[in-house]
Amino acid sequence: MGNQRYQNHEDIGDSDYNSGDYNDGNPFGENNNNNNNSNSNSLGGHSYSRSSSVGTTKHETLQMPDYYDETEVIRPSHGSNSYGKKSGITHVRGKHTFTEQEKEKMSQFESLDFPVIDNQIYRDFHKKSTRLNHILRTFGKWAICFMIGVGVGLIAYIVKQSVEFVQDFKFHSSEKYTQNGGKVIGFFVYYSINVLFGVLASLIIIPVGQIASGSGIPEVKGYLNGIRIPHSMNVRTLIGKTISLILAYSSGLILGPEGPMIHIGSMIGGAIGQVKSKTLKWYPKIFWRYHNDRDRRDFISTGAAAGVAAAFGAPIGGVLFGFEEASSFWSRQLTWRTFFACLIATFTTNIILQGFQVQVHDYGVLTFGFSQEYLYRYVELLAFAAVGVLGGLFGAFFVYLNARLSRWRTEFFSRLPIYTKTIEVFIIITLTSVVLFTSAGLTGCRNEADVTYPIDTITAQNITFVRFFCPEGQYNDMAGLSFNTLDASLRLLYSRSANLFSIQTLIVFTVISFILTTITSGIMLSSGLFIPMMLIGASLGRLAGQFGALMFKHANPPIDPSIYAMVGSSAMMAGFSRMTISLAIIIVELTEGTQYMLPVILSVMIAKWVGDIFNESIYEHLMEQKCYPFLPTQPPQSMLRFGITDVMKTDVVTLYEVERVSRIIEVLQAADKHAGFPVIEKHGSANKDAYSEDGIYCGMILRSQLTILLNYKIFCQEQPHIQNTYQRGKNQRRWGKATDYGHIPADGRMNYQIMTQALARHFPPISEMNITREEIETMYIDLRPYMNLSSVVANETFSFQEGYQLFRTMGLRHMPVVNKRNEVVGIVTRKDLL
Amino acid sequence: MGNQRYQNHEDIGDSDYNSGDYNDGNPFGENNNNNNNSNSNSLGGHSYSRSSSVGTTKHETLQMPDYYDETEVIRPSHGSNSYGKKSGITHVRGKHTFTEQEKEKMSQFESLDFPVIDNQIYRDFHKKSTRLNHILRTFGKWAICFMIGVGVGLIAYIVKQSVEFVQDFKFHSSEKYTQNGGKVIGFFVYYSINVLFGVLASLIIIPVGQIASGSGIPEVKGYLNGIRIPHSMNVRTLIGKTISLILAYSSGLILGPEGPMIHIGSMIGGAIGQVKSKTLKWYPKIFWRYHNDRDRRDFISTGAAAGVAAAFGAPIGGVLFGFEEASSFWSRQLTWRTFFACLIATFTTNIILQGFQVQVHDYGVLTFGFSQEYLYRYVELLAFAAVGVLGGLFGAFFVYLNARLSRWRTEFFSRLPIYTKTIEVFIIITLTSVVLFTSAGLTGCRNEADVTYPIDTITAQNITFVRFFCPEGQYNDMAGLSFNTLDASLRLLYSRSANLFSIQTLIVFTVISFILTTITSGIMLSSGLFIPMMLIGASLGRLAGQFGALMFKHANPPIDPSIYAMVGSSAMMAGFSRMTISLAIIIVELTEGTQYMLPVILSVMIAKWVGDIFNESIYEHLMEQKCYPFLPTQPPQSMLRFGITDVMKTDVVTLYEVERVSRIIEVLQAADKHAGFPVIEKHGSANKDAYSEDGIYCGMILRSQLTILLNYKIFCQEQPHIQNTYQRGKNQRRWGKATDYGHIPADGRMNYQIMTQALARHFPPISEMNITREEIETMYIDLRPYMNLSSVVANETFSFQEGYQLFRTMGLRHMPVVNKRNEVVGIVTRKDLL
Repeated sequence: MGNQRYQNHEDIGDSDYNSGDYNDGNPFGENNNNNNNSNSNSLGGHSYSRSSSVGTTKHETLQMPDYYDETEVIRPSHGSNSYGKKSGITHVRGKHTFTEQEKEKMSQFESLDFPVIDNQIYRDFHKKSTRLNHILRTFGKWAICFMIGVGVGLIAYIVKQSVEFVQDFKFHSSEKYTQNGGKVIGFFVYYSINVLFGVLASLIIIPVGQIASGSGIPEVKGYLNGIRIPHSMNVRTLIGKTISLILAYSSGLILGPEGPMIHIGSMIGGAIGQVKSKTLKWYPKIFWRYHNDRDRRDFISTGAAAGVAAAFGAPIGGVLFGFEEASSFWSRQLTWRTFFACLIATFTTNIILQGFQVQVHDYGVLTFGFSQEYLYRYVELLAFAAVGVLGGLFGAFFVYLNARLSRWRTEFFSRLPIYTKTIEVFIIITLTSVVLFTSAGLTGCRNEADVTYPIDTITAQNITFVRFFCPEGQYNDMAGLSFNTLDASLRLLYSRSANLFSIQTLIVFTVISFILTTITSGIMLSSGLFIPMMLIGASLGRLAGQFGALMFKHANPPIDPSIYAMVGSSAMMAGFSRMTISLAIIIVELTEGTQYMLPVILSVMIAKWVGDIFNESIYEHLMEQKCYPFLPTQPPQSMLRFGITDVMKTDVVTLYEVERVSRIIEVLQAADKHAGFPVIEKHGSANKDAYSEDGIYCGMILRSQLTILLNYKIFCQEQPHIQNTYQRGKNQRRWGKATDYGHIPADGRMNYQIMTQALARHFPPISEMNITREEIETMYIDLRPYMNLSSVVANETFSFQEGYQLFRTMGLRHMPVVNKRNEVVGIVTRKDLL
Repeated sequence: MGNQRYQNHEDIGDSDYNSGDYNDGNPFGENNNNNNNSNSNSLGGHSYSRSSSVGTTKHETLQMPDYYDETEVIRPSHGSNSYGKKSGITHVRGKHTFTEQEKEKMSQFESLDFPVIDNQIYRDFHKKSTRLNHILRTFGKWAICFMIGVGVGLIAYIVKQSVEFVQDFKFHSSEKYTQNGGKVIGFFVYYSINVLFGVLASLIIIPVGQIASGSGIPEVKGYLNGIRIPHSMNVRTLIGKTISLILAYSSGLILGPEGPMIHIGSMIGGAIGQVKSKTLKWYPKIFWRYHNDRDRRDFISTGAAAGVAAAFGAPIGGVLFGFEEASSFWSRQLTWRTFFACLIATFTTNIILQGFQVQVHDYGVLTFGFSQEYLYRYVELLAFAAVGVLGGLFGAFFVYLNARLSRWRTEFFSRLPIYTKTIEVFIIITLTSVVLFTSAGLTGCRNEADVTYPIDTITAQNITFVRFFCPEGQYNDMAGLSFNTLDASLRLLYSRSANLFSIQTLIVFTVISFILTTITSGIMLSSGLFIPMMLIGASLGRLAGQFGALMFKHANPPIDPSIYAMVGSSAMMAGFSRMTISLAIIIVELTEGTQYMLPVILSVMIAKWVGDIFNESIYEHLMEQKCYPFLPTQPPQSMLRFGITDVMKTDVVTLYEVERVSRIIEVLQAADKHAGFPVIEKHGSANKDAYSEDGIYCGMILRSQLTILLNYKIFCQEQPHIQNTYQRGKNQRRWGKATDYGHIPADGRMNYQIMTQALARHFPPISEMNITREEIETMYIDLRPYMNLSSVVANETFSFQEGYQLFRTMGLRHMPVVNKRNEVVGIVTRKDLL
């Protein structure tokens, strides 16, 4: 729950909320004058009494001059310092150091509120909740997962069906000409359909926004890590991305539908259960209890997994993709619900694709031939390992090239109008069409009769030869790869046959497809990398297998190049994505090649190892480039010697437990980069304890909560008596009792349900809130019933590593740092840990 | 790291350490007199100055009388209270309430120290560590995982090979007689071999200990959750369990090797990398950095997964079993290493089992026939769902029966000598042998020619008919199930054939195997449940399929009962173990039945749902019965209304930052239930801050660390000047600098390496430590360089739910509860959260 919620759907533009958590470079105190000037008229110019309230008591100013007396505290992340590496210590990921500009961009992203806001109203609400409520709530989650499964399955079906229709039309109409000898007409029919679809796919991105382009996996990973990426999960993007995907996948470019399907799945996951429309001012109350970032995150995880499941027909692969690659937070309950959604998604797609037939047939898209007796030699495991090494090298090289290319692309197009990107798409389509068509045209014909098949293998599908210009009984092996749908090309590469391709065809196709994939990935349309990389890998693997067969000509049984094709695919996929177990399962589910699990796993492990020597996965690099402040599971090794105080922000803006309305409005407007505020005890309050000091930490309150309190005018006439939470009898410590544990009754107009529903809506900016001058000047807000009482804090003695682990594992957004006396000395947010 | 380490290997008996963390019922203050009396002579009778040191300052005694002035604070877990349910609020799991006796037993178990002890010496050590160190450390983990894989693979091979040898011998020699008509002699040959092995398998448990009996999965789950279960991970148990498993699995009882293989795998995982021998006083220094509970836990997780992988030949299933079922803590790094170990384990077993052949053949133990065209009808999914419901019902019923039976068994045998358990084994073997042999004997012969096969299916293995007393060309269908190895029976049930079994054979066998499995599980020998439950499920499923085939006689293609057998197995396994995704993968890897993944997943999900209505998985029930204080991932729903203060222990024993040796010895001896002590600031110390109070929390120190400090005599002459950690300049906050962040130099005789190695060894009890009376009376220990500076605390405002999440997610052992002024008011350990 947070103010960022207002930006979830449709438009994101309220400058009032468009800010990061706690940013570098703009310590609050410095902005003092500017802020007062920019205050809205209704507010008057209240002077700013505490720039950081910890520094006001006498002891503190004496003891901690270094924290607050300077505009900028020396921190390793700020420019130069005397430490080992020159590159600065934070903001280093892998070998990349972020520039000031990139840091600025990074600070634009807000974080999501994954922690439960365990405040008094939440507790009051749960006091009344029964076992039935709990069961209903759990049941609701399953129901939403069911809907996600059906929704994702339907979209996957629509995509697959549309693409099949268009592809069939394209290849049939152009083949009609080519087979009659009309090469040029054939090419132009093929080419013009490609251009039509490709350019349309690109044009639709312009109104929808750049976020709909590419695979969307970095966005999903980022969101699930806790980064609110604007527009990444809204309905417009969903529609735009789906249309762009259908068009792009039909355009003959070398790209796959799986990446976008994952993003589409996660958008569906985010939308279902959050059904509401700001435009229609329609906020239905069913599922209101899931209207928080935490539950939404889980549904998005489920949706992403269902996307994989539907795209590949791999339900278990989907769950594992969600667990291993997409999600940063995972639980056992989520495993089960996701598994269920994946099952439903796979089933929905399959049953409609098969046209509601009575009988289930073998529907594996790439079913690999089943061997009855002999599989491979043990020695061949070495060859599979070598293919793994190749996959790792090529994968890492691809990541390197693609990262450089997309960096160049960003720079190049930043100075040009957006339609130039469509021109780029046009050029690449032209290039792709020409290269693929020409390569097929330059390749000779082969006799169908020369193809041999291993004896004990059952080839699930018969091989569909592509004749291209060849006479009856002959086929063009290059056209089978280049003048074909990607699925069909893969099927040919996987087919249990020998002598189907010439070695030079495979070499040429590997090189062509590698180059085309590299330049295609990153252009302005929906595109994924899974299928292209599988294709490159299969071609490379089959090539390796054919070489092996040539070298050991007299081996009996002969070496089967099709196994190498499957192993090559796995290695290449592992090389660029660094997935392991989910990848192995996806390959096995896709090909039904359980018999060859050992070679697949071996090559995947080795490709990952080899790739990891050179760089990180493509997603990490893309996230880095897009400046998403992604927190990996492990803290950077280079930070081993630092403490949490070395990275924390010290410009903390705090609020008193009972705070003046004027001050709250000031703080919200001035500290516009701060999304959460520690609540502290007031010095000299009704609490008679002589040792009570100013600055003692009590809890956290979010900007969004404050805004709602202001909007609902939850004011009190004067500062109420602050109950001494320490004076209570032995039986008075439970919340269920009349004398609740430190219980401060919430205002009757505000409870958990109102607050949760309000957090899911859009509120006017403070200046439009119609708060009278009198209210501002005389009224107070009692924050105690609304602040988070279970917020985790770090002690200033914490090391960076342990602080990181605590922050990352618990999925925090703000982690106040306190000293030995529990006074707030700093605060840690996502960007401090990078 | 902890004092519990001393109990890892060989003998566990030092009464000095044999204690829980912080237990109910024995507030420290009450034991004061007894403790002083029981002090060893060298100590003298120091009076106990602070029973809980927070209560000594004036303000506190005034303000918090209820915490410390009573011997027992009213807590919901202590007997009756006025709240909702009468059963007491904690110590309720599912529908079971723990008795006082069980709570006592539960409190006997110690916890493991999963958190990193981030103290000054640890930081000093890492200051010097280079990037190479880090790489070496990571490489070492991979090397250990490789060794775990090889080790587990070898043991799996030995088990499988020995069992095959014995079984072959048994069935061949008894069949020789039966086929010649010598029914009685045949039975006695069969029976006597069974008895011989079964009784031996049981007898070997007596010297090794009860822990080697059963499947061991509850022990593995418990250990990985953080419970130190005595003897569960030592070498003697490993050897005893392996031998018992080989013997038991050859004894004709209906039991499986997979559960014990998981325990064996985890013991190997625990042993490798921890190679040392207390008996030989041999403590090699290689791998010393992994000698802590955290790394050991990860290796044990890996070992357990490798056990599954080797037993089933299912590398991915192994990883997922570790992730979904066995482990409570999991990381991405662990996924990769475990995947690697599983690959190695599977490979090792397979390559040796195949006798180092050149070519790999189809090695699936239960390879399911591959269908070329038709799989099943969509309508049949309803039937598969019904099988899922049956599996869930039978599974839940089995859990219920088994839990009751083993409770009765525990009670019954508690009054009898241990050898009576061997008599029980003898009786059950006799019963099993008689029932299985007789059932086969009473069944008529069927013609081999009557068996039909689906046309489009490739049956991977030919059916091996069991003739029993039947003439040539005929076979006994019951004998194929009952007078056969369990693997072979399963293979028959899975065989793609129709009309192989009569319906009454399947009914009889389902009932027999269900009853025999129920009574067998829990007797005193190594036994697992996976294969027996698969067998029952397959029989039940095939029965359902045959019924369906009878009802829809004219269906074309006919209904294939073999698919139902596979689905039935999956449902039954899910019904008793409540695994989902790992189970589906294991089934698929075992049977290579990727084509039938949808029915398998469907039945697994439904069986889990149905089972969950009635009870929890068998492992949860066994852990409950063995009183393991297992913490599930989610806090109990019934605790929603409570705060962390409602469950915390208030009898906290604290130590000063610089503490007298006499007091440390007293505390260690008197507070023998406490494994960790909060370290607090001393009132009136050199710290000049007037507001410093007694009781302010500084860090945690473990009993084991204190013991080592005493043993190494890390004393200082007098209380050194306590450095004021608040007075430091702006550049003095980094540890790397000369003026380190609150840096107190550790004694030169003690560093991280010495401490870690010492923690892995065994120390004499304090009374034998040869500390002079003078040292005790005049010396101090400075605890500051050794206490954990990054220990997570909960504020007293925390709710139970959030406190639980923090404790469970971070894998804590002690969670001090502090008030607003950071004074320790209580402590939470595992048993408080149950």
